[in-house]
Amino acid sequence: MLAEIITIGDEILIGQIVDTNSAYISKELNKVGVKVYQITSIQDDRDHILQAFNEAKKHADLVIVTGGLGPTRDDITKQTFCDFFNDVLVENSEVIENIKELFQKYQLQKPLPANFQQAMVPSKAIVLKNLHGTAPGMWMDEDNTVFVSLPGVPYEMKSLLQTEVLPRVLKRFNRPFIFHKTLLTYGLGESAIADRIEKWENALPKDIKLAYLPSLGRVRLRLSSTGWDKEILEGKVAKQMETLHKMLDDIAVGYEDETSIVGKISVLLKNKNQSLSLAESCTGGAIVSQITSEAGVSSFLKGSIIPYETALKSKILGVPQFLIDKFSVVSVEVAESMAENANKLFGSDYAIATTGIAGPTKGDSDAEVGTVCIAVASPKGVESGMFNFGNDRYRVIDKATNKALEMLLKEISKN
Amino acid sequence: MLAEIITIGDEILIGQIVDTNSAYISKELNKVGVKVYQITSIQDDRDHILQAFNEAKKHADLVIVTGGLGPTRDDITKQTFCDFFNDVLVENSEVIENIKELFQKYQLQKPLPANFQQAMVPSKAIVLKNLHGTAPGMWMDEDNTVFVSLPGVPYEMKSLLQTEVLPRVLKRFNRPFIFHKTLLTYGLGESAIADRIEKWENALPKDIKLAYLPSLGRVRLRLSSTGWDKEILEGKVAKQMETLHKMLDDIAVGYEDETSIVGKISVLLKNKNQSLSLAESCTGGAIVSQITSEAGVSSFLKGSIIPYETALKSKILGVPQFLIDKFSVVSVEVAESMAENANKLFGSDYAIATTGIAGPTKGDSDAEVGTVCIAVASPKGVESGMFNFGNDRYRVIDKATNKALEMLLKEISKN
Repeated sequence: MLAEIITIGDEILIGQIVDTNSAYISKELNKVGVKVYQITSIQDDRDHILQAFNEAKKHADLVIVTGGLGPTRDDITKQTFCDFFNDVLVENSEVIENIKELFQKYQLQKPLPANFQQAMVPSKAIVLKNLHGTAPGMWMDEDNTVFVSLPGVPYEMKSLLQTEVLPRVLKRFNRPFIFHKTLLTYGLGESAIADRIEKWENALPKDIKLAYLPSLGRVRLRLSSTGWDKEILEGKVAKQMETLHKMLDDIAVGYEDETSIVGKISVLLKNKNQSLSLAESCTGGAIVSQITSEAGVSSFLKGSIIPYETALKSKILGVPQFLIDKFSVVSVEVAESMAENANKLFGSDYAIATTGIAGPTKGDSDAEVGTVCIAVASPKGVESGMFNFGNDRYRVIDKATNKALEMLLKEISKN
Repeated sequence: MLAEIITIGDEILIGQIVDTNSAYISKELNKVGVKVYQITSIQDDRDHILQAFNEAKKHADLVIVTGGLGPTRDDITKQTFCDFFNDVLVENSEVIENIKELFQKYQLQKPLPANFQQAMVPSKAIVLKNLHGTAPGMWMDEDNTVFVSLPGVPYEMKSLLQTEVLPRVLKRFNRPFIFHKTLLTYGLGESAIADRIEKWENALPKDIKLAYLPSLGRVRLRLSSTGWDKEILEGKVAKQMETLHKMLDDIAVGYEDETSIVGKISVLLKNKNQSLSLAESCTGGAIVSQITSEAGVSSFLKGSIIPYETALKSKILGVPQFLIDKFSVVSVEVAESMAENANKLFGSDYAIATTGIAGPTKGDSDAEVGTVCIAVASPKGVESGMFNFGNDRYRVIDKATNKALEMLLKEISKN
């Protein structure tokens, strides 16, 4: 079965916001066997919306529409649904109650008449309760196509999708299984990989699809297949993935899965009752903020120091000045000393340290832009490396963050 | 004139990546007077691509296509262009040279035959030189519609758009001016704002469009207009914006523009030759990493300490233990002490401090999840506030980061 996603809002088409809703919805639909055929972003314009609805209906069994549900007059999605389904807006008492509850819960002033306009919904729509906002979701099932309308605010959309939409999709549609497995590789370009696996790729069964996803020094290789028997499907993909993994054993670093690298580090450190600290210079807090963006890290994370100014590496962290003078501030020696001293300062078992030149200009060092030294100090000693991550500041920081977390995971897994 | 953006790639439709290219392209096109009519994301499938090309041609003068240009066989965009334009692929010597140059520059091994397949381009296409990758951009002008094909890798796409595509768009098309001005407001919902400005909104000239963009405690109000005389256009929008700003004076915090809040802080601190440090507990490095993600901050940023474990707030930062015992670790008193001590530790003029409960569970405090105390210490003293940013970890950190930077900017602007 096929779905289409339509996002409505001028803010997307003028580039004022990035549409992250579509990726979230696509991923969640895929998990329950629904394939997304197309994603279309259009303006808050009646004729354009109607045209997109008509096009979507030709291909899709399920059309998920986000946006255009605000209480202000630039939002015209509901009225356009009425035009499309030859329906009228009627007041819905459940929505009225929900609005009152929300205003009470968040101790807001009395709802305004405009807030109650949110309770006007197409008469044929099934209302989906929005726990986090006044705009209700709507489920409209007609002529074998289901249209679902959701607010564009990501937080509200996600909650409605999980609590109201997906359970209904499971009941309403007969769906196959869709299975993806993605191998992460590091250090070889996509052409070189394609060259190496050419024979195997040629012999790949027609119902298994291979995709190459290059990004930031890595290539991800995704195998996808769709079928009605979950076990057979997963077995078929697993068998091909095993062969692929063997051919790329020297560059494979694992599979992409739901557990993030921080999640993996978190589980290992908690099991061992060990702790972590960081001393980040050139990554400027990017690593620690990636760690603290996940819940439950306070049980192992002691803290982090970002000695951005060179002098602070000695003053606060205690890196010997002669190391900086002898090897320069961007050196594996200084990175190692930073990591060891971070363990002392924070009283932790493991420490990550970074020092380098994120660019675009050189700092207090002769090193090339993009040079980053990373060290991981552990109870067994200290490991380090010097890397060059190119000349784009954002990419340098991002690659260094990935590399440092990879090095830490490797060290923790060893000990 | 109208444009359409078509992004090709299964990875978008299964939600494996978020399409950030479209927002970037839309924004850049808007700046030169090109309105984006629709953004369409489709699969790596010949028939689907052809169908999208035919649809786009009906409305758009310019169609920008990204993705599907890799050297591997899942990438079929170029061949599909040939089918669409009744064309054939021919070898292009400029692309061959570019590939050789890139391999030499990045000291890679010898190019493989697959790499040289990138030099096969539709015979009618004008080749656009890609400085950062082997896939060339292409410009195909036929029957009054221009199709442009760009690689999907954001770094390569952006560079090609700036150096090759936009200059050609300026020459090829007669374009009006498009002008947006966005007022940022904080503290009032969109219904309440709509209620307050109703009369003015009713009287707004037909050619000026108002949009409400609610997000994370803020509402952005955007006025947009299109016209052929830049001065008249900007004057008309400015006049309406002035009236709007006056009506919302109590909640307006400024205009959205190209300069980020970090950029504004950066300029002010550099002009005054003053410095900044941070002590971030609950924001866990999110603020410092937002600052260090921008270039040129090392001239004013001393560093940051993230004392995630409560005990470290005393041990490293020197917050008196009695303050923590008396007021609890999540208190404005502790936040203020953290900020003042950060200035001492780092030798800086300004310091931001945060302490709070990002959630989902409570930490070493009785405070509600979402409570965040923020302090800014400056040469004139210390300012602080206690806030509740809700119960979603990601949103709490994000809102606290925005609020802290806002408070800092206010303090620096004052002094």
